[in-house]
Parts: sequence; structure tokens; C-alpha cells
Amino acid sequence: MGTTYSLRPIGRIHTPFTRQEGTPIQPSTAGGASGTVEVFAAYRQSLQDLDGFERIWLIYLFDRAREHSPLVRPYRDTAVHGLFATRAPSRPNPIGLSAVRLVAINLEAGELAVKDVDMLDGTPLLDIKPYIPEFDSFPASRAGWMDVAGCDEGVADDRFHPPE
Amino acid sequence: MGTTYSLRPIGRIHTPFTRQEGTPIQPSTAGGASGTVEVFAAYRQSLQDLDGFERIWLIYLFDRAREHSPLVRPYRDTAVHGLFATRAPSRPNPIGLSAVRLVAINLEAGELAVKDVDMLDGTPLLDIKPYIPEFDSFPASRAGWMDVAGCDEGVADDRFHPPE
Repeated sequence: MGTTYSLRPIGRIHTPFTRQEGTPIQPSTAGGASGTVEVFAAYRQSLQDLDGFERIWLIYLFDRAREHSPLVRPYRDTAVHGLFATRAPSRPNPIGLSAVRLVAINLEAGELAVKDVDMLDGTPLLDIKPYIPEFDSFPASRAGWMDVAGCDEGVADDRFHPPE
Repeated sequence: MGTTYSLRPIGRIHTPFTRQEGTPIQPSTAGGASGTVEVFAAYRQSLQDLDGFERIWLIYLFDRAREHSPLVRPYRDTAVHGLFATRAPSRPNPIGLSAVRLVAINLEAGELAVKDVDMLDGTPLLDIKPYIPEFDSFPASRAGWMDVAGCDEGVADDRFHPPE
């Protein structure tokens, strides 16, 4: 249980959002917001053949989230839920996961133009994976409290952000 | 670019698979293989309200993958592709992502019974997120080379595993 693992970002995500308040809570609520994924030089060759994928998974660090609590009141409900039953950014390992639309690739510059971004500007990127419906898409999957949630907020406030 | 982040596992995933060779390459090829997610005591309260979610995302470390190469020949094709256009386990940050079926929850023991596991026994777990179709499901998303791939292997061989 004591082992730790060191991860080093492979790039950075540039978005229009500089504060958590007002940032879309998910790609599906982002209204097509545009961003750029910057991939550091050492990793650019690995971007080959991403063209043709309509969406990609971005796996990143919520580097500005506050300390996690085991129970949280998520954006989509008025009730409190266990943290792992939510997508709240404050987590023991603050890893974010977003399926964004891939619009254009500049292999030499290591830049991906993407849409539906829902993370803060400058977010450290850990991994890129192709979105593959056979592996990732379960449209009828029951979604617990989300299916009966009490509200419908699409943008964040500052509840998971440290006080300034 | 020099920053590193330390992550500490929140649990461990127990599966029937002790070697990469023969392990399903994805939950969709796992034929319903059963596993157990062990969540360490400090994080058990965060499991509340996961019941009702049909699937959960497991985010974990490919702790036994070999060093990555920028170009790989993935299981689903005979051609070589850029690493980030594949789901190969050998990656700069060896993070795995699997949508598994949630079968039962034992909150006190911190145990989740799951199906469709596709990772090695003892895999370190980093995060659990609920699978939410509104955020995660894009059934018609084009999938590049995967849509026209040359073969259809559902289990792994040892190509991403270090020599013994």
C-alpha cells in the first residue's frame, strides 16, 4: 500500500477556462468549446494515425483541485454522494478523463485541435487514447443517482477549488 | 516539463490473469471474466452510491508493461501505428482505462465484484469513476484504423511484456 508511482506529463491542454467557476463540467456540456492539446517533442511521433478517430480520451491531472473529501455534493445533484460515485475533480489521485472531439492534427508542432474541452487552461496531460466505441460506448448503461438527479448544472462553481 | 506527480494506489484489482499472454485485450473481449476490486480502508467511504451504476471506469497502472516505443503493432492490426492511436499498455505514463460491469458492492470490506476484467491480477488501482452514458458514450464515433483493421485478436500475447 505504501508504493507511489511518479508520472511525468507528456503535454499540456490549452483551453479558454482559467477558473473553475464557469468551466463546463463535462465535454457534453461544453457547447463545443475549442482547445489545443500541446504534446511535448519527445512524444510527437506517437501521435501518428490518430487522424480518423473522431474522439480521443484525454487523461490528465486536476492540478488545481482542492484536497478530496470522501463525500461530495456533485454538480448534478442536491444530495451528497460517495466521491467514487461522482466525477468531482478533487480525488485521492486527481486524474481527469474526457472524451473530446478531435478536429485537426499538426504532427510537426505536436498540436491537436480539439472541441468540447472541459478542463482548465494549462492542465498537465498524462495520456491520449483513441476513443473506440467497441471498447468505450455503452449507451444504455444505468447511471445510478445520475439517472434521477435533482438538478442539471452544466458549468462548475468553485466548490472543488481551494479558497484564494 | 520537468514536473513529476506522485500517485499512490487506492486499491488493487484481482483477476484470473497472471500473465499478459492470453489476457483479454479489453473488457469487450473478456467474455464476462470475473474479478474483485479491493479498495483500501482509507477510501471505502467514497464507494457510497456506486450501486445503481451498471458500469464503472477503473483507472489503473500497467505496472508490468515494458518500456514504451513511439510506434507499435497493436493486437487489432497487422500494421504499425503511433502509440497514442492505440490502447497498448506500454505508454509514457502506463495508465489503463477499462469500463467494467459492476455486479456487487461490499462497503465494509471495500470490495467490488466486477465482470469483464481485462487486467493482470494484482494491478494497482488509481481511481474509480461512474460510467455515465451522457459523458462517455459515443456509439457512432469513427475509430480510424480500428474501423478497417486487418485482424481481430481478443487476447494478448507477450509483445508488451518484458522478457522473463
